[in-house]
Amino acid sequence: MSQSGSRTSVPDETPCVDTWLTRYRQVREASEAICRPLACEDYVIQSMPDVSPPKWHLAHVSWFFEAFLLKPFLPGYTPIDPAFDYLFNSYYETHGAPFPRALRGTMSRPTVAEVHAFRAHVDQAMTALLSEPPADAREEIMHRVELGLHHEQQHQELLVMDIKHILGMNPLHPVYRSDAARPSADAAGPQGWVDFPEGVRQIGRDPETGFTFDCETPRHRVYQAAFSLARRPVTNAEYMAFMADGGYERTELWLSDGWAARRSHGWTAPLYWSRHDGVWHHMTLGGLKPVDPDAPVCHVSFFEADAFARWAGARLPVEAEWEIAAQEYPVAGHFQGQGQYQPVAAAASDEALVQMYGDVWEWTASAFRPYPGFAPLPGTLGEYNGKFMSGQMVLRGGCCATPEHHVRDSYRNFFPPDARWAFSGLRLARDLT
Amino acid sequence: MSQSGSRTSVPDETPCVDTWLTRYRQVREASEAICRPLACEDYVIQSMPDVSPPKWHLAHVSWFFEAFLLKPFLPGYTPIDPAFDYLFNSYYETHGAPFPRALRGTMSRPTVAEVHAFRAHVDQAMTALLSEPPADAREEIMHRVELGLHHEQQHQELLVMDIKHILGMNPLHPVYRSDAARPSADAAGPQGWVDFPEGVRQIGRDPETGFTFDCETPRHRVYQAAFSLARRPVTNAEYMAFMADGGYERTELWLSDGWAARRSHGWTAPLYWSRHDGVWHHMTLGGLKPVDPDAPVCHVSFFEADAFARWAGARLPVEAEWEIAAQEYPVAGHFQGQGQYQPVAAAASDEALVQMYGDVWEWTASAFRPYPGFAPLPGTLGEYNGKFMSGQMVLRGGCCATPEHHVRDSYRNFFPPDARWAFSGLRLARDLT
Amino acid sequence: MSQSGSRTSVPDETPCVDTWLTRYRQVREASEAICRPLACEDYVIQSMPDVSPPKWHLAHVSWFFEAFLLKPFLPGYTPIDPAFDYLFNSYYETHGAPFPRALRGTMSRPTVAEVHAFRAHVDQAMTALLSEPPADAREEIMHRVELGLHHEQQHQELLVMDIKHILGMNPLHPVYRSDAARPSADAAGPQGWVDFPEGVRQIGRDPETGFTFDCETPRHRVYQAAFSLARRPVTNAEYMAFMADGGYERTELWLSDGWAARRSHGWTAPLYWSRHDGVWHHMTLGGLKPVDPDAPVCHVSFFEADAFARWAGARLPVEAEWEIAAQEYPVAGHFQGQGQYQPVAAAASDEALVQMYGDVWEWTASAFRPYPGFAPLPGTLGEYNGKFMSGQMVLRGGCCATPEHHVRDSYRNFFPPDARWAFSGLRLARDLT
Amino acid sequence: MSQSGSRTSVPDETPCVDTWLTRYRQVREASEAICRPLACEDYVIQSMPDVSPPKWHLAHVSWFFEAFLLKPFLPGYTPIDPAFDYLFNSYYETHGAPFPRALRGTMSRPTVAEVHAFRAHVDQAMTALLSEPPADAREEIMHRVELGLHHEQQHQELLVMDIKHILGMNPLHPVYRSDAARPSADAAGPQGWVDFPEGVRQIGRDPETGFTFDCETPRHRVYQAAFSLARRPVTNAEYMAFMADGGYERTELWLSDGWAARRSHGWTAPLYWSRHDGVWHHMTLGGLKPVDPDAPVCHVSFFEADAFARWAGARLPVEAEWEIAAQEYPVAGHFQGQGQYQPVAAAASDEALVQMYGDVWEWTASAFRPYPGFAPLPGTLGEYNGKFMSGQMVLRGGCCATPEHHVRDSYRNFFPPDARWAFSGLRLARDLT
Repeated sequence: MSQSGSRTSVPDETPCVDTWLTRYRQVREASEAICRPLACEDYVIQSMPDVSPPKWHLAHVSWFFEAFLLKPFLPGYTPIDPAFDYLFNSYYETHGAPFPRALRGTMSRPTVAEVHAFRAHVDQAMTALLSEPPADAREEIMHRVELGLHHEQQHQELLVMDIKHILGMNPLHPVYRSDAARPSADAAGPQGWVDFPEGVRQIGRDPETGFTFDCETPRHRVYQAAFSLARRPVTNAEYMAFMADGGYERTELWLSDGWAARRSHGWTAPLYWSRHDGVWHHMTLGGLKPVDPDAPVCHVSFFEADAFARWAGARLPVEAEWEIAAQEYPVAGHFQGQGQYQPVAAAASDEALVQMYGDVWEWTASAFRPYPGFAPLPGTLGEYNGKFMSGQMVLRGGCCATPEHHVRDSYRNFFPPDARWAFSGLRLARDLT
Repeated sequence: MSQSGSRTSVPDETPCVDTWLTRYRQVREASEAICRPLACEDYVIQSMPDVSPPKWHLAHVSWFFEAFLLKPFLPGYTPIDPAFDYLFNSYYETHGAPFPRALRGTMSRPTVAEVHAFRAHVDQAMTALLSEPPADAREEIMHRVELGLHHEQQHQELLVMDIKHILGMNPLHPVYRSDAARPSADAAGPQGWVDFPEGVRQIGRDPETGFTFDCETPRHRVYQAAFSLARRPVTNAEYMAFMADGGYERTELWLSDGWAARRSHGWTAPLYWSRHDGVWHHMTLGGLKPVDPDAPVCHVSFFEADAFARWAGARLPVEAEWEIAAQEYPVAGHFQGQGQYQPVAAAASDEALVQMYGDVWEWTASAFRPYPGFAPLPGTLGEYNGKFMSGQMVLRGGCCATPEHHVRDSYRNFFPPDARWAFSGLRLARDLT
Repeated sequence: MSQSGSRTSVPDETPCVDTWLTRYRQVREASEAICRPLACEDYVIQSMPDVSPPKWHLAHVSWFFEAFLLKPFLPGYTPIDPAFDYLFNSYYETHGAPFPRALRGTMSRPTVAEVHAFRAHVDQAMTALLSEPPADAREEIMHRVELGLHHEQQHQELLVMDIKHILGMNPLHPVYRSDAARPSADAAGPQGWVDFPEGVRQIGRDPETGFTFDCETPRHRVYQAAFSLARRPVTNAEYMAFMADGGYERTELWLSDGWAARRSHGWTAPLYWSRHDGVWHHMTLGGLKPVDPDAPVCHVSFFEADAFARWAGARLPVEAEWEIAAQEYPVAGHFQGQGQYQPVAAAASDEALVQMYGDVWEWTASAFRPYPGFAPLPGTLGEYNGKFMSGQMVLRGGCCATPEHHVRDSYRNFFPPDARWAFSGLRLARDLT
Repeated sequence: MSQSGSRTSVPDETPCVDTWLTRYRQVREASEAICRPLACEDYVIQSMPDVSPPKWHLAHVSWFFEAFLLKPFLPGYTPIDPAFDYLFNSYYETHGAPFPRALRGTMSRPTVAEVHAFRAHVDQAMTALLSEPPADAREEIMHRVELGLHHEQQHQELLVMDIKHILGMNPLHPVYRSDAARPSADAAGPQGWVDFPEGVRQIGRDPETGFTFDCETPRHRVYQAAFSLARRPVTNAEYMAFMADGGYERTELWLSDGWAARRSHGWTAPLYWSRHDGVWHHMTLGGLKPVDPDAPVCHVSFFEADAFARWAGARLPVEAEWEIAAQEYPVAGHFQGQGQYQPVAAAASDEALVQMYGDVWEWTASAFRPYPGFAPLPGTLGEYNGKFMSGQMVLRGGCCATPEHHVRDSYRNFFPPDARWAFSGLRLARDLT
């Protein structure tokens, strides 16, 4: 999700203060752990306009707590530097004009050390606030903390994506962690299909049942025709067959905008792929490695996913199809905690769908638009997701860079149709008639 | 519809040859009638990349008949100039790389007279083909003729839009027809709402029931929650209230992409509007005129329509809502034949929706994506609509520039969300809970 | 010269009123004669931003007389349309913001007929003014008329260049005049050199000696080292040898900006060249023709001329060298009046320089900067040449599209170093040591 | 000088090996001293395309020694990383395609520490080479070392300019050195003029007299008319008067390209200036400070300098004028060694020119073009200066960031006319008649 936001819920069993502090510390520490393998110089780079320097992420997620919690609710709170409010606002126009996104990579200051000092300053104040929250604002504070932590988790995934791009574009092929992108013991089996009957179903999420981003609401009815979903995501081997069959040169397979994007960007393979001695390799967070034919294809745009599906005589699923199918499975898979930072092959299953969660975000055929009855959050937080509901496509299921417990069946991620630096792949669908 | 295409049907009572010839001649003549008020110089201009020179339209619709009917089906057909096949292909990539769209306005030749000679050449050959169609291809020919005529009708509307832009951008305020944009006797009444119950409904169109563009198919079930639709489109007076209330300066009303479009284009009012002595005027095909407060607002982008709806505490309807409502009304309204070339006020109605058809295309909240079960036409004609299903929003209902009998309840027009040169307005919707 | 201007002189023998009227009519008629072979549609096209539609040229040169003569000096003069003052101002910022140059091709109105009516209106008023010029302004009027006529002659050459580009870019290869670009009977002989001694010399022009553009003044001393100048311009055959020797691929031959221009424009041959069945052809005003190996190479940029000279082990002359050499020759050669509209081969000469005037403008090594002591004209006319003295290179000698009697040894034309649509070629020079 | 190069000379009294080693070490150390105040993050930033990250400069000047000395002349030399040859080639196209300049700021690796290791590696090898240079290549080696050291000095000035831009664009106003930009005790006196007689003079430099960049050669005769030169550069007070008089709004003062640059960049003051509480401040390497009215104006483009001169009723000097005047003065002034990093006011002098050297580079009226008889260096080193001889203007005299002993009267610096990040100011000239 290139940006993010949410409507929170506080169920009856609101976690006690200690629980919140513990969660706060865990999430905050996780962000820093992601950055620990970096050199100081890596923190500063914006390798393309969509990427933000890692130190910007670290500061921005702290800005969120400062702007929406400490300033309104902690009496006597003093910012460490008033200019940070301008520098680390991402896009909240109603909060004040944000610093231009494309210039984030031109700022050497604050330094990495100063950003860490900012984090420590915020953490200290947040500890104070969470230890003794004012009684009359307790509920609102807990709502916002929960949102702030989910927000920081979203940026944890973005951090991994952006670090991969920063290192992946470098001609020296630097390695982030040498234990990343290890080979998998599993072999993807042959493709298969699982059928689903027609009917009126429910998708989306009721905030009363737990934390929910605004764009997932409200839970609502849809009529869904019968359909089939592929058992597993498309593999690198299958994608190489598409490439070998002229997939990137056959205009009839592509949407008009996709064909234009292919031409202007010069796409001939997924992002990070290059050929060495006749063998396809790709940059991973473990360095340059041969492409594993059995692993899910990754770093393809919506346009490439759509062209592949057409070539394969199938189509992408709409998000209702994906969600109806996902409702039957637990949220389990290869997430960030596993330390792979790269999708891997999974053993096939005769009956069930595999890899619905984790490994790769799956492009759907659905444009990111509001659900029937959608209402954004009030105030500045209302800019969370609603304002991005144009020009983007929905992806589902999380990926190898998503923090554990961050996704669910109703979770809607979104990117422009030509974006490729997310861990994005696809699963096929077809009509059942 | 910036481009177009279709799946045709030949019902049992296929029109006889004479009928087809008659329809062919009527449609062809209508295109030329639209251009008759033009000066020779007007035919050549491309006032922005989206606009095509009128002589290009006249030639391109003829190219369609040459490429898809005369060359495959008329033995011995000789093109008047082989280069026209390249020059007047609009976007059919599989037919051969088309001439770059942005350069259409750099071509003085063929001249207008030569384009008319091309039309006459095609018409003569089409008369021969339609008079004695080869028996074994008769059905396919009639399918394609029907598609070709609907295609030409789409370009008739585009011709009017493009002529308006060519003249409307000219600082001399030239008049297309002095009898266009006459004042209306009617006064728009106060806004009101019509309610619709929830339920599983059917939208889309079965090609067996008559001519259908591919993107309207198949007819399919949707679950629709209860909703209200505004009785009439938003008027200029209402839109001016939005402007007066800072609508163009309040970031919280806009989608993020819309806000960026507003800023980069410098929008402060609908296209063609300018202020003279404190009074809003706009260019019409009848020249520069004061804005009629009671007429539907027109020449606004999706982003402006969406911002207006948010300001009004409402939203745009999704296309299913619009279509369900429209199914109850006959296709009647102010179309091109009326000679207004400008939306006009309509008398209010206490009970019923008014102006569902004609006057202004109504932006919906729906992205232009395929219906469940959609399949494009085979071959080159498959490029008709399917390939444009990204980055565009759906509009419904036709406008004052649409040829009579060209639209229907299931008709899906589409434009990018920042397009303003179509006769595009809006009707509000809201949830009913 | 992409723009132009001048300081005039009225020698004692000021021409009488009749003479001025006659000259006025001759020059005005010559502009219309150039346009007579055009179709109405050709008048409207702007085939690239540097090109102006022919009808714009016809109106702009008339605007000059209206703005600088009729309005200030003819009592009771009424413009035919006040908006023309804005539309047809080319670049005189101090006269009011001009209409954006890049949009000239978006204006269908005024029509060609209306532009001719504007010309007739101006001509009638000018006849009145020139028949009885007010005594107290007589000298200033004659100065400005002279400038206006030279200005119109400059636009006559631009008209030919722009018409060539409008037709030359058209895939249909339209012919302007079938008698243009006829083959020459002459064969260029082998290249040779003429030597010139060192010394302090004078270049530039004293306005007292006749009409002079401001940028030619003042006449001034220069020290010039000894040098050699090639007897004739570089031929197409010689340029093809450069191409065959990898001239367009060898970075060491090019200026850094030239190499970037070559890459971004994809240059591999002069403008208008294309290969058919292995033979180089080029568009001429007589249509598509095989390249004549003996004719001077034409439609090359400064960057290409400079690279060719380096490849040939020579260099381009500085403008002082060219002018010192030209001072010894009469102003004679192939100009526009000859009706060729294309450079042709000239017979060699053992001793003398040939083709110093006419055929092709010759790129020099000199940037277009003011001469020592240069002072622009006062007032708005001061924008004539001085403001263009950055980013342009000087060309000398006139070409096949230059009106007879328009150039002289001191005449300085100028274009940006990547311009190719002028009739621009080159003559080599080298040091003599 | 945005790029640089030279023809070296080895006078009879060639320095002995020890001398060369000493100079090598001094120059190399000076580069590192410039960077010592930087934070690690500052080394990585490319704040605009013209700027290079400091670590890139440190590596590139080392690449020069590796490519042109160690690889050809030190047997057994092993590069520390073969990829550096590609990454740190600046623009030598004939040496292999260089890494795209605009992407230099996207490279976090090699890290600063790795760049320092690269420098140490090169220094060790250079010490070996210079300690025992092969007898047969001794002269060529000394030539190239001398060029390499002057090249590194050029980059020392670029380092200061680029560091200023990196810090100067940062909204936090970081300070490079707190002792920089100290106030001056001197007050600029009133402007005055010094006259020079006409005559044939010599400018340029004979390489036999000492190290010379190629573009300064050959020494050659020019005829120079009589002229006056202003005693001192234009001050901030004078420039503020130009601004107060509408200098940035009066189109008649500007070259056409300059007016367009002013508009597109939104210039209203020199680079780094901003107004606080009604007082003009500017970013310096000592932080944000009030503008000193007596100091020379700095960070203006050629276009601004040219407009100022026109406003002042004067003009910029051509480079021959500047050089003829400078020949009478010793090379002395405020250079980098003084530690100001900012131009300062100098005491007036009744008779003499002041501040011809140091403080600010002075824009001249001369385009950067080759001198008569100029020949570039052979081979790849021939790309040194000659290839940049288009589209740039000459500046003279050195500035507060120029290393001591690096400039001389014949030294030609050059920048595009819209560049402002050099320490560039101006001195007025006028005709003497």
